[in-house]
Amino acid sequence: MANHLDSFFSALADPTRRAVIVRLVAGPAQVSELHEPHNMALPSFLKHLGKLEAAGIIRSEKIGRIRMVYIEAAPIAEAEEWLKQQRHVWEKRLDRLSALAGNIEKESNDG
Amino acid sequence: MANHLDSFFSALADPTRRAVIVRLVAGPAQVSELHEPHNMALPSFLKHLGKLEAAGIIRSEKIGRIRMVYIEAAPIAEAEEWLKQQRHVWEKRLDRLSALAGNIEKESNDG
Repeated sequence: MANHLDSFFSALADPTRRAVIVRLVAGPAQVSELHEPHNMALPSFLKHLGKLEAAGIIRSEKIGRIRMVYIEAAPIAEAEEWLKQQRHVWEKRLDRLSALAGNIEKESNDG
Repeated sequence: MANHLDSFFSALADPTRRAVIVRLVAGPAQVSELHEPHNMALPSFLKHLGKLEAAGIIRSEKIGRIRMVYIEAAPIAEAEEWLKQQRHVWEKRLDRLSALAGNIEKESNDG
């Protein structure tokens, strides 16, 4: 679980790799199509795809002479869930602080 | 925005730093209290805090002789939002595929 989130968040920490994710959530694509908008040598781009694949975020499949790339949604949902949990704890604390501030104000008005 | 998410996701790609976040969403803490559960030399631990602070995820304040550390919730919400957007696009596509599959099945039954 720890290593899983490590490699996932690390894979997200790059604009090229995030752009690939943004493209692939809309549907599968060939490697050449994914590479086209990036001003980058193909070997460098393939390293980015390799990092995404190692993190389990994409998978690829060779169909004849082309390689199709697909998104894997589970890690995205898992990372989102982790962040959501942190936000929930934080928001609950804010609610308690806010209630506490309300009580203090009320007591100060009553006194 | 790109660099912002770069440094944020990069900061999350480490179990020690995620543990610090999990602790701080529950409330501010002193550096010594944050360090205590980690079997790690203080200078190494301070580097992790430095990375979180550079990413805008935490801030710290010296109060007399102690340093208090606070979470900054905005980057967590921003990263969560980015992931949510990707999931939404992906789910919409699944809905369309599912509807399409339903139509094909219906036509095949009607035919």
